[in-house]
Amino acid sequence: MIIVLRPDATDDQLQHLVEVIQQAGLQAHVSAGTERTIVGAIGDESKIRSVPFTAIPGVESAVPILKPYKLAGRSLHSERDRIMVGDVVVGGDEVVVVGGPCSVEPNDSLLLTARAIKKAGATILRGGAFKPRTSPYDFPGLGEEGLVMLDEARQETGLAIVTEVMDTRDVELVYRYADAFQIGARNSQNFNLLREVGKFDKPVFLKRGMSMTIKEFLMSAEYIMAQGNPNVIMVERGIRTFETATRNTLDIAAVAVLQLETHLPVFVDPSHAAGDFRYVIALARASVACGADGLMVEVHPNPEKAMSDGAQSLKFGKFERLMGEIAPVAQSVGRTVRPPMKES
Amino acid sequence: MIIVLRPDATDDQLQHLVEVIQQAGLQAHVSAGTERTIVGAIGDESKIRSVPFTAIPGVESAVPILKPYKLAGRSLHSERDRIMVGDVVVGGDEVVVVGGPCSVEPNDSLLLTARAIKKAGATILRGGAFKPRTSPYDFPGLGEEGLVMLDEARQETGLAIVTEVMDTRDVELVYRYADAFQIGARNSQNFNLLREVGKFDKPVFLKRGMSMTIKEFLMSAEYIMAQGNPNVIMVERGIRTFETATRNTLDIAAVAVLQLETHLPVFVDPSHAAGDFRYVIALARASVACGADGLMVEVHPNPEKAMSDGAQSLKFGKFERLMGEIAPVAQSVGRTVRPPMKES
Amino acid sequence: MIIVLRPDATDDQLQHLVEVIQQAGLQAHVSAGTERTIVGAIGDESKIRSVPFTAIPGVESAVPILKPYKLAGRSLHSERDRIMVGDVVVGGDEVVVVGGPCSVEPNDSLLLTARAIKKAGATILRGGAFKPRTSPYDFPGLGEEGLVMLDEARQETGLAIVTEVMDTRDVELVYRYADAFQIGARNSQNFNLLREVGKFDKPVFLKRGMSMTIKEFLMSAEYIMAQGNPNVIMVERGIRTFETATRNTLDIAAVAVLQLETHLPVFVDPSHAAGDFRYVIALARASVACGADGLMVEVHPNPEKAMSDGAQSLKFGKFERLMGEIAPVAQSVGRTVRPPMKES
Amino acid sequence: MIIVLRPDATDDQLQHLVEVIQQAGLQAHVSAGTERTIVGAIGDESKIRSVPFTAIPGVESAVPILKPYKLAGRSLHSERDRIMVGDVVVGGDEVVVVGGPCSVEPNDSLLLTARAIKKAGATILRGGAFKPRTSPYDFPGLGEEGLVMLDEARQETGLAIVTEVMDTRDVELVYRYADAFQIGARNSQNFNLLREVGKFDKPVFLKRGMSMTIKEFLMSAEYIMAQGNPNVIMVERGIRTFETATRNTLDIAAVAVLQLETHLPVFVDPSHAAGDFRYVIALARASVACGADGLMVEVHPNPEKAMSDGAQSLKFGKFERLMGEIAPVAQSVGRTVRPPMKES
Repeated sequence: MIIVLRPDATDDQLQHLVEVIQQAGLQAHVSAGTERTIVGAIGDESKIRSVPFTAIPGVESAVPILKPYKLAGRSLHSERDRIMVGDVVVGGDEVVVVGGPCSVEPNDSLLLTARAIKKAGATILRGGAFKPRTSPYDFPGLGEEGLVMLDEARQETGLAIVTEVMDTRDVELVYRYADAFQIGARNSQNFNLLREVGKFDKPVFLKRGMSMTIKEFLMSAEYIMAQGNPNVIMVERGIRTFETATRNTLDIAAVAVLQLETHLPVFVDPSHAAGDFRYVIALARASVACGADGLMVEVHPNPEKAMSDGAQSLKFGKFERLMGEIAPVAQSVGRTVRPPMKES
Repeated sequence: MIIVLRPDATDDQLQHLVEVIQQAGLQAHVSAGTERTIVGAIGDESKIRSVPFTAIPGVESAVPILKPYKLAGRSLHSERDRIMVGDVVVGGDEVVVVGGPCSVEPNDSLLLTARAIKKAGATILRGGAFKPRTSPYDFPGLGEEGLVMLDEARQETGLAIVTEVMDTRDVELVYRYADAFQIGARNSQNFNLLREVGKFDKPVFLKRGMSMTIKEFLMSAEYIMAQGNPNVIMVERGIRTFETATRNTLDIAAVAVLQLETHLPVFVDPSHAAGDFRYVIALARASVACGADGLMVEVHPNPEKAMSDGAQSLKFGKFERLMGEIAPVAQSVGRTVRPPMKES
Repeated sequence: MIIVLRPDATDDQLQHLVEVIQQAGLQAHVSAGTERTIVGAIGDESKIRSVPFTAIPGVESAVPILKPYKLAGRSLHSERDRIMVGDVVVGGDEVVVVGGPCSVEPNDSLLLTARAIKKAGATILRGGAFKPRTSPYDFPGLGEEGLVMLDEARQETGLAIVTEVMDTRDVELVYRYADAFQIGARNSQNFNLLREVGKFDKPVFLKRGMSMTIKEFLMSAEYIMAQGNPNVIMVERGIRTFETATRNTLDIAAVAVLQLETHLPVFVDPSHAAGDFRYVIALARASVACGADGLMVEVHPNPEKAMSDGAQSLKFGKFERLMGEIAPVAQSVGRTVRPPMKES
Repeated sequence: MIIVLRPDATDDQLQHLVEVIQQAGLQAHVSAGTERTIVGAIGDESKIRSVPFTAIPGVESAVPILKPYKLAGRSLHSERDRIMVGDVVVGGDEVVVVGGPCSVEPNDSLLLTARAIKKAGATILRGGAFKPRTSPYDFPGLGEEGLVMLDEARQETGLAIVTEVMDTRDVELVYRYADAFQIGARNSQNFNLLREVGKFDKPVFLKRGMSMTIKEFLMSAEYIMAQGNPNVIMVERGIRTFETATRNTLDIAAVAVLQLETHLPVFVDPSHAAGDFRYVIALARASVACGADGLMVEVHPNPEKAMSDGAQSLKFGKFERLMGEIAPVAQSVGRTVRPPMKES
């Protein structure tokens, strides 16, 4: 931590600051410049990270030097992770595609979708049994009934399944059915929920919050990891900006930044980023070219009847086209995509 | 709902759209303009709000006409609410001031603060027993022990108390101790938590999320109200923007917009908005002048030792100054502020 | 400047960095911590501000210590300025109100407005002869004809006049007619235009750009001042955020931040911030309470016929109400507002 | 235009609204719903686009139906454009790469860069002779001397040249030297400058402003086109958001949106988006995969000595790597990249 004093800071104020640093067990290194005195706090920065230095008289600003995420960062762990979701390897050469409807609905759309995405080359099925909806009057998901339907789809198709958990009280229930948890954007700083999934041994697809910096995103991963669950998959899904032509603004650079900052796999959800099916395939191509380890894509047999997120869902034909278009892009960056199944 | 067709929409597409509207129980009113055909869906718009019209072939865009919040809106309920927090009237002529430390700490700072703010004219004490912290390594709050300390401070001072609840599992516990729940910015779209506090009969201070539109903010209030709890107090606390001179950007206009859109009381939290004690008093004055029904202010006996948010906390003397400065501003807009207690 | 090295930086890289600093005429102060080596560059920071330290091998980050605005900042000039606009004192005890239509129109609306705002207590008339319009098909202003009309309104009413200049080629022309220049939000980083108005001796109302940080805003003031014109008036007019309930988000805290950072007067334009006449008066009250030195308000005799910005313009009666409401607020913060003229 | 009335609008207010629409030469189509009355204004919407409907009593909101950009839009011109920059075809199968230093410097770096980028496969040279700098104390560019140096580099290498114009007074001068104008982000709504380059017959690389919506970006293109110059190339370069890990947030979806909305070619500038050389190549790959028609990349022989934007400039070796990496990506989406020149 570097602490910059105000030009008019007194010697007493400097002395007091030095004591605060020393009492925390660090050394204070004072450096008097021509225009400002600067104090370096040398030692374990984590001990003073929550000291409100700017509340100390005479202090102008304080600049942390080290990154606050230890487990998620690369300094102690430089190789990129491979994480198993069911028997699917995430973080390997293959760009893994997760597909499925926004919500599990009380009809056969989940099963139809599971068959269709498997045929096109996807290996993981998504579908919400618990749905965060902006309006209390919208469809909230089927709950455990939806989890059962996901399980049935897995049994028939062999796809691994991932589904969202929204409530600390549901973590154990979801654990029993799913191969991986999903934490949604709106719960990305629901710290108790993060801690709770951190106590289990299944992977977590962690979506970035709408106004979350990349640093905060990594701190949310750190929450999960600090409980003992190292299997976090980071999902960029667009941030909120002033632009309204798309539902969110896909921060494609986050893929590159995360791959430098963390050893965790990085996915992109082009469906929520776009909010409009017409842009999903182009964003999927861009994500793979940028280096994403996988994609989460919303697919529905008949989007205009979808109970949620229909506007951004791909029909089966469009999803096949997506898989067909990302395959050569993956190859161009040294990755692979699972080919479609041959017609029997 | 107004649905605009693409210039190249076919008659079959129009016919299909009309059927979708009619099947939902509304009437379709087709209006062929010189450049576009427009279809009005007339009737109960809530029945079609989640139909993904842009996924229907031939549709260019769809524009809702009605506001999606019924209970929180003013169309059915035009007078402004008065809500009791303990025996404090919120939403009356008096600008109500909530003060207290960010966290309840394992020392006497809560009690000292309670006495000081009461003396200065505050009527409600705040303090976090459960703290959402960006880092898993930071102080998470004292839990029930903190609630007990809040209760003791209430017994001594007679202040009402409000404290944050972060987890559906803790709602009942917090209910037993507090006069009002607080839902923090990071849980403002934790819909299960909103539903849970909606089942109880104590008021809820609902903070605006960092990237929440005012419309979404009202929808979160609607969640609570739809469960039967009408006592929601809206708290503007700054939104996230590109500006870094302050921790958040106080959206002061939200006070004016909310007072037009809802009958619920509107508070401002200038401490989290500013993130810097030097700006808190000026923002407090602005909030009262704009029409806020109350303020939530962080106060600490010794901010440089605060276990959280020290940089934005006011010392007792500064808090007295705040109360002294907002009093004439309140008067200038026809409101009152509780005067300081006389020295005995 | 503090430069932080990467954990794996070599001695040669450190040596090279030290040379870069020394060659620029500063001293390098090396401080080896337990986890990072840090180098302080001591001396005139402006000499190295544009060195791209992060392009130097081994460097992780570089943190400037000093503020880059010297003329606009308070370190060399701590008292707050008083600036004359015509014979109106800006920055004194009186909160100065600038009123007028968005555009000068080819009819009598400017003159009617000038009379009305004068009667209500405004002292400066605004009106655009050159208008930045988002669409090339919208009314671009009357040009010099509009300037002549402003001059006539001044002669009749005695109000000072301010009008926008958008083009370096028009600066001299505007100078001949106006008492003050206005630089609009869209030209707030049109650096040649800033330089050009900096060569003249009339004050400049400088609006904040829509995505401009406060630091950049001060740097734009610095541009004008560096040419020799110290008379810059900072105008906060809202920034662009995700919120759409208002046209822009008024950054009310910018008033408080600017008054700490600069000696220049600070105004607020509540009309462009709100974009909706219904919120203008509340924002005006908030601005005065926060400490603004003045307001710029759009006023029009018949907003629904205004050639630009009708939705945010106040009718005469509403403007009188604004003046009546800000007067007690000004008093509550120790300022004054010019009272309305008595009926003769 | 669809105008929605307030629930309490009177018949007189409706009648007045109808008259406003009719006086503008459009037809008013009144449709009384169960909860709101809606009025469609049928005819040439451009005649009423600037009417401030919300200033008309009884009106709640007004929704435009048509897009305001006619020349830039695809309704009248559906094929995608090919534009000649010197003898380089922009908008064809080849992904065109523009490279060069941020500023033309008073040394041989421009010429060295020109040779290097040509060898690597770039076809257009960029370099600023007039530089918009946030600080008045930074290097402002060499002016005409820089233009002469660009001309010399063109003569030696055969590369086409593009350079920024910042001032209406310099347009003719830049026209004499350059093959294309560049309008920078900070001048993207400098409407007089847009009009001025619209009067010339050379192409314009128009950068998106930092807080510009895609719609506004197209309106700025419309400004140029409305003056008679149809040769506009749209350059996405990142927008300003809350994220600080990169200098700007590359809005990669803008490429997809623009290709649907306009016939104009779309480029990406990954250098300004990233602000950090480490992310430029990944963003370049993503841009090509998304469908960009070209890239603008900053290249410098020795970035740590660059007079501007060194942190985001690529060295020659890295630029060669960029060209090598985008070539297979281009091929994977059916495009080509100019191969590097063979060693002689």
